[in-house]
Amino acid sequence: MDMPTTKPDITKLRVNGQRLWDSLMELAQIGATEKGGVCRLTLTDLDKQGRDLVTRWAREAGMTVTIDKIGNVFMRRAGRSNMPPIMTGSHIDTQPTGGKFDGNYGVLAGIEVVRTLNDHGIETEAPIEVAFWTNEEGSRFVPVMMGSGVFAKAFTLEHAYAATDTEGKTVKGELERIGYIGDQEPGDHPIGAYFETHIEQGPVLEDHDKTIGVVTGVLGIRWYDCVVTGMEAHAGPTPMALRKDALQVATKLMQEVVACAHRHPPHGRGTVGMVQVHPNSRNVIPGSVKFSIDLRNATDALCEAMDADIRAVAAKLSQESGLPIEITPVSAYTAQPFHADCIAAVQKAADTLGYSNMRAVSGAGHDAVYMARLAPAGMIFIPCKDGISHNEIEDAKPEHIEAGCNVLLQAMLERAG
Amino acid sequence: MDMPTTKPDITKLRVNGQRLWDSLMELAQIGATEKGGVCRLTLTDLDKQGRDLVTRWAREAGMTVTIDKIGNVFMRRAGRSNMPPIMTGSHIDTQPTGGKFDGNYGVLAGIEVVRTLNDHGIETEAPIEVAFWTNEEGSRFVPVMMGSGVFAKAFTLEHAYAATDTEGKTVKGELERIGYIGDQEPGDHPIGAYFETHIEQGPVLEDHDKTIGVVTGVLGIRWYDCVVTGMEAHAGPTPMALRKDALQVATKLMQEVVACAHRHPPHGRGTVGMVQVHPNSRNVIPGSVKFSIDLRNATDALCEAMDADIRAVAAKLSQESGLPIEITPVSAYTAQPFHADCIAAVQKAADTLGYSNMRAVSGAGHDAVYMARLAPAGMIFIPCKDGISHNEIEDAKPEHIEAGCNVLLQAMLERAG
Repeated sequence: MDMPTTKPDITKLRVNGQRLWDSLMELAQIGATEKGGVCRLTLTDLDKQGRDLVTRWAREAGMTVTIDKIGNVFMRRAGRSNMPPIMTGSHIDTQPTGGKFDGNYGVLAGIEVVRTLNDHGIETEAPIEVAFWTNEEGSRFVPVMMGSGVFAKAFTLEHAYAATDTEGKTVKGELERIGYIGDQEPGDHPIGAYFETHIEQGPVLEDHDKTIGVVTGVLGIRWYDCVVTGMEAHAGPTPMALRKDALQVATKLMQEVVACAHRHPPHGRGTVGMVQVHPNSRNVIPGSVKFSIDLRNATDALCEAMDADIRAVAAKLSQESGLPIEITPVSAYTAQPFHADCIAAVQKAADTLGYSNMRAVSGAGHDAVYMARLAPAGMIFIPCKDGISHNEIEDAKPEHIEAGCNVLLQAMLERAG
Repeated sequence: MDMPTTKPDITKLRVNGQRLWDSLMELAQIGATEKGGVCRLTLTDLDKQGRDLVTRWAREAGMTVTIDKIGNVFMRRAGRSNMPPIMTGSHIDTQPTGGKFDGNYGVLAGIEVVRTLNDHGIETEAPIEVAFWTNEEGSRFVPVMMGSGVFAKAFTLEHAYAATDTEGKTVKGELERIGYIGDQEPGDHPIGAYFETHIEQGPVLEDHDKTIGVVTGVLGIRWYDCVVTGMEAHAGPTPMALRKDALQVATKLMQEVVACAHRHPPHGRGTVGMVQVHPNSRNVIPGSVKFSIDLRNATDALCEAMDADIRAVAAKLSQESGLPIEITPVSAYTAQPFHADCIAAVQKAADTLGYSNMRAVSGAGHDAVYMARLAPAGMIFIPCKDGISHNEIEDAKPEHIEAGCNVLLQAMLERAG
């Protein structure tokens, strides 16, 4: 490689936004839907085409490609030293009615960083790696964030291999079929630091008119099922005072799920998304109501506090009404704060580049959550239109796409030296 | 008929409770279910068997039987005069998982009144008639209360004839098949007064430990569908302040449906029985919620006031939340107060007989509602166990069955002279 003799001012480096946009649009052709979205489910033929295209681009940029046993792909640009690489990445699988940016942006932003370094003949101390992780979306096989989860030993390779889709096909069989089952032992791959760029998947940046979200962490999640048991009875002959109306008690608790989030600001979130009323008949007082509770907050301690809060409220409502209320945990994901150094690197890059920015949290899971268990990690958000993702109308502005990639470049260079 | 020479003290007359109970149990054998209930859907072979048995009993009691074109059956005990008859009745069709008493009690109590008059050789001035009305339950053919509805010209004979069951069989065809399509023009049958005994189908009498409910009227009903439209979004990335959570607004309105009933005492009733959440996914903020509203009260003016109340609350909630709320009327049934003279006759009979009693309203529809449009009408309620009806475990106590029939006897005799 032809190196410059004087140290360049890396703060003046900028990525090629048009090239990045063009790559995003080209990748989005694989599995393109009529409504302008992408359907490229993990480990399908289309996923193989996507993987082939991205790894071809990586090789064309002089990167070496390795694959691990769960199909995670690592594309490496050598550094001066053999230090653990500064890594970025995300995923290229999509939801069945997914968009062009979710995941894909994080991977292609990494490729664009490497192309930019190549353009300017910049060598880094640590190697630069771009990864894409298998089956982040979880819409064909569960669990979600499968590749990064196996990599971080959140669950075993065997567990992931055994997962089946609705047709009974396994992850292992499909990996073999598309030729993306590698030799590397998942996790047997040191990481110096990890950054991930992603569309926000929420409305906060757009609402605040900011270009960059400096992500401080990913919210912890607690999922529950709740059942209120009353007594079904005819709506006509049963006077109000003699009713055991399960829905009336349930709706009070549904209100409290939201109130509980407000009692734990600024990041507390409470959602009832699913409701089943029994017998669900117009003139019958509901005998039982089952509904979901989704509580989220920035730390596990706050999630725990929300858990205690909603249980106390439920106990009080049960006592007042005389109706049993049962709350059953369904699943829990720990909160994952990002590393102070990585947050600072993203913040500094955004400030230096002059992009309007704000601190943000991620309410959704990302591969970066698992990477944060293994190495210092951070994320960069850019706005997405109306906060909509997992939808064919998912959209982001070219200038935001470019800005996020510039922040990634600066943050990675700061860490890579 | 061998008449006594002195006028008997009719207030001393009592029905034969055991005979009435035995008849109820015998009729309940036709369509008996394993769980102790009855499945005798209208215009089936089992209904024909039930009709044959009851009319045989009527003929054995010296009554003449006539049938109208919608299959309503009138069993007449002649009076001294040809005045319009004092009529009682109800129905003998049941729900698919019905009980032994709903409807059947009202018909067999009438038969027992006649048997008692026969036992004591008592002649009345007005004739006594016992009717059973076709398809009160409405579980095989709609509309409900079909026979009495056609009789009262609430809808046409043609409309009723054309109703089909799930197999496509028509009311007219089934009436012909079981041989219960008569010559009389429905409604072409004067009535002097109408009484109906019925299990309460609610918990009020049991709760107050009263034997007799002196029914003052039947509640009017207003049915609505309500749709709250928000914006579906991911439960994770969307902070509380930026949500348009349709369920949170809907649950406030569901609470108000009950509050509205309490604001219109003592007979106001408000029920949300049916709820559909869209997309009904655990981690998606609901984008829209559709639910039913059932409002009832003792007069149409009160129903109208509740209608205005809930619409005003919905408008306020919509304004506060910024979410559209649409309330669409589905159907309405007018309130039907009973005739003061009939209420007084039932009250006097219960008092004279020394039965504990209270004023009551009916929250459910009965054939008496349509008869009240044609003649002075009243109803007598007796308690049913736990307020449960339309269920195989429906139960009533023999002493209450007997008491209600004694009240019916006295009230009819007062009106029949």
